[in-house]
Amino acid sequence: MFENMDFSKMGELLNQVQEKAKNIELELANREFSAKSGAGLVKVSANGKGEIIDVNIDDSLLNDKESLQILLISAINDVLSMVAQNRSSMANDVLGSFGGIK
Amino acid sequence: MFENMDFSKMGELLNQVQEKAKNIELELANREFSAKSGAGLVKVSANGKGEIIDVNIDDSLLNDKESLQILLISAINDVLSMVAQNRSSMANDVLGSFGGIK
Repeated sequence: MFENMDFSKMGELLNQVQEKAKNIELELANREFSAKSGAGLVKVSANGKGEIIDVNIDDSLLNDKESLQILLISAINDVLSMVAQNRSSMANDVLGSFGGIK
Repeated sequence: MFENMDFSKMGELLNQVQEKAKNIELELANREFSAKSGAGLVKVSANGKGEIIDVNIDDSLLNDKESLQILLISAINDVLSMVAQNRSSMANDVLGSFGGIK
């Protein structure tokens, strides 16, 4: 991992990584992800930081609380997985751009 | 940050950090967090990894979908904040136990 690295440049490199990380946080806040469950009866949206920004429930589900709760769990976890996947692929991009670290 | 570090020991140190991180992931999976909104009308539970494991909705909310959706967003985000806070405090503990890195 660190075999070919010039450690005297570590401080500078860390600053660059921090700067990139800050930009990514801003970008993530503006991305939006959505997941559906129950063939669209439940839809949950999150921003790229993993904050839930919208929950939409079809009226027909209000008569079936058990199904509603299960479908909510499913859609929330799906959208959080999408967020995590996006976050980790962006982190990989940043690390990749600093060749020595990855 | 890295001023007093012996880089020749970096590889060994990274192995130790990885080992600790693996144990923490296992521990996180077994922790449970819950958040309520609407004075308890909605309750959302997650494990320490941030996976939603339970959603509980009071029957009275089924007549008020708008409120239900808003209370869900609030409880989900609250429980995810608790998970994130716990995760970061555990990460700090790990880094703290490797004096040179923190």
